[in-house]
Amino acid sequence: MPRPQPASQHTVRRHNSALVLDAIADAPGSSRAAVAARTGLTKATVSSLVDRMIGADLVAEGGAQTRSGPGRRGTALHLSPTGPHGLGVEIGVDYLATCLVDLTGRVRARWLRHSDNRDSSPARVLAKVASAVRTAAREDVPIGGVGVAVPGLVEVAGGTLRVAPNLGWREVDVRGELTRRVSLDVPVLVGNEANLAALAELWHGDVSDDFVHISGEIGIGAGIVVGGRLFEGVSGFGGELGHLSVDPRGPECGCGSRGCLERLAGQDPIVRAAGVPGVEELLAALAAGDRAATAAVRTAAKWLGVALAGTVNLLDLPTVVLGGTYARLEPWLRGPLRAELDRRVVSAEWSPVRVVASSLGAEAAVRGAAGSAVRAILADPDPYVTAALA
Amino acid sequence: MPRPQPASQHTVRRHNSALVLDAIADAPGSSRAAVAARTGLTKATVSSLVDRMIGADLVAEGGAQTRSGPGRRGTALHLSPTGPHGLGVEIGVDYLATCLVDLTGRVRARWLRHSDNRDSSPARVLAKVASAVRTAAREDVPIGGVGVAVPGLVEVAGGTLRVAPNLGWREVDVRGELTRRVSLDVPVLVGNEANLAALAELWHGDVSDDFVHISGEIGIGAGIVVGGRLFEGVSGFGGELGHLSVDPRGPECGCGSRGCLERLAGQDPIVRAAGVPGVEELLAALAAGDRAATAAVRTAAKWLGVALAGTVNLLDLPTVVLGGTYARLEPWLRGPLRAELDRRVVSAEWSPVRVVASSLGAEAAVRGAAGSAVRAILADPDPYVTAALA
Repeated sequence: MPRPQPASQHTVRRHNSALVLDAIADAPGSSRAAVAARTGLTKATVSSLVDRMIGADLVAEGGAQTRSGPGRRGTALHLSPTGPHGLGVEIGVDYLATCLVDLTGRVRARWLRHSDNRDSSPARVLAKVASAVRTAAREDVPIGGVGVAVPGLVEVAGGTLRVAPNLGWREVDVRGELTRRVSLDVPVLVGNEANLAALAELWHGDVSDDFVHISGEIGIGAGIVVGGRLFEGVSGFGGELGHLSVDPRGPECGCGSRGCLERLAGQDPIVRAAGVPGVEELLAALAAGDRAATAAVRTAAKWLGVALAGTVNLLDLPTVVLGGTYARLEPWLRGPLRAELDRRVVSAEWSPVRVVASSLGAEAAVRGAAGSAVRAILADPDPYVTAALA
Repeated sequence: MPRPQPASQHTVRRHNSALVLDAIADAPGSSRAAVAARTGLTKATVSSLVDRMIGADLVAEGGAQTRSGPGRRGTALHLSPTGPHGLGVEIGVDYLATCLVDLTGRVRARWLRHSDNRDSSPARVLAKVASAVRTAAREDVPIGGVGVAVPGLVEVAGGTLRVAPNLGWREVDVRGELTRRVSLDVPVLVGNEANLAALAELWHGDVSDDFVHISGEIGIGAGIVVGGRLFEGVSGFGGELGHLSVDPRGPECGCGSRGCLERLAGQDPIVRAAGVPGVEELLAALAAGDRAATAAVRTAAKWLGVALAGTVNLLDLPTVVLGGTYARLEPWLRGPLRAELDRRVVSAEWSPVRVVASSLGAEAAVRGAAGSAVRAILADPDPYVTAALA
């Protein structure tokens, strides 16, 4: 058995840079001495790493300080608000969203435009995405990475979208196409929108470490978080709640199956049953107590309850987060959904399921995409620092 | 923040004992020197711990040796075949099974008796269980622990069965009742039968580290294994595949829901549709090409396919293991089940699902129960050793 090699100077610096930055992100306002105490590194090592990270504008000095005391070592450290930003893009079925977040995940700017991507070729949509990325990149902040959320199965390592039934796309090299169209010399991550939305909920929402987040839009996806980590399955294809067949002899679905949840409880069947043209009109009708609208949402809630009861029976998760359009429909969904869960979850009596609306709503996926880009830098800052100082 | 306490002499011995025993279990025939090299402990430490474990009959000397060489240190070590055994019990819906396994998990003896536990009170059934345990305990081997598999939701820490819809049991203190009836001074573990069956499959079957194991009997349960570990959910109530509602307006289920998988694809609806009294007659009819029997299994396979496609869409697991009665029905289930999976799993084209029959079949749960009892000793041998040497 070969022994583990001694860590090289570079490996050690890489590891320690991540430790130090994590300590600063976790306790903004810490002094160098506090970071040293927390990480177990010497003050000299911390100071040298912090100086490099200040040089690369990952870390900034000043502002609120957690401990008083005179001298240079007492200066408060925090993630730099002018440092690298994450640029998030979401390719929705009927919209394109972009946003810029700083290292702390705070939104600096966001854009949303209607775009019927169902009726467009991948090339046409990716040209729009490239244009949206260029617009965002014109903001006066450095871009540290791009995250792209797509409504389908993603081969994450290669950045390829395998299939997106609601877009009618197959085998689209999203990363490659985007890199070709926009000359940004930064990493591009591609991920499933429901998974990225669940991560945003984990980072910014008011939930604990175990939940399923449902992105309910035209398509329905789930992001499963267990022990504070995304559960994606062996190939990253998990969470396809929208294609849980809740009525096996029900209507055909673009995926090839029948009676999939999104054919019965997605945005399209709800507005159709309510007899309104879109979500805004649906919400107005619900607020006015319209009978057809209320019945349409109630029916969707029952199907959603069947699918979520199945999910909880399999995974025993304590919390369901309603995201996307479902977050806005939550006041009308909650009652009938709860009733189905109480009736169909075997363990409901001993392990009751909490149903909450996402605080991020339809914005979760693009926040997750942008956040993933900055978290990639926070998790391993040294390559970014080395490039910035070169 | 309190600093971690220095490990006491006793903590260190406990930790190292587990390391040493694990090395011997993993590479039977190792010498003390090989165990020292593998664990990084000194030869003196290994020798002293091994001597204690030989004294407690956890480890034995002799037999095949992996490395040649003269002298005492070269003596081959292995788990003792006469050491503590695990006594497994399964309370099935219509049978009681018991088995004894040695430290390596090899079966020494097993018992199976028909017992219609549906029509009996918990007290009556637990009296039979106690009698079965006493019978097994009369074998001329030491008992190191008892594992009990039950067909329902288990609060594992307390050893309480919360609910078993197919038995009609609620809130039964299985561990307490059994401990009261049998005076065995050993730990009693209680677990869900599907979870224990999946563990047995992981330990003894021909599958990799990621799979879902379906226990198909009168009830249907699933054990989900991810990365070589059982995934049980936050409260241990996961894997309730039998109560996935595949036909939400279908027949009522004992759990309170409707159209649960086990009402449509469990053993009872299959034999009823086939017009035969039981599983043996069903298998004979299938072998004879009987049309009603073939159609009954085909229908069950389709419902099973709907539920498993949902499971794979959520969890992206590469392998489905058919266990329990389903293992025997596999030749007839496989075709229609595969067809449903191919049609309904969104990622099937990129991440195909393998369907295999369990090699342990209906025996898996009781093997898992017995195996859990010995594995508890292997994972933390020092308390057992200390008690044995006292």
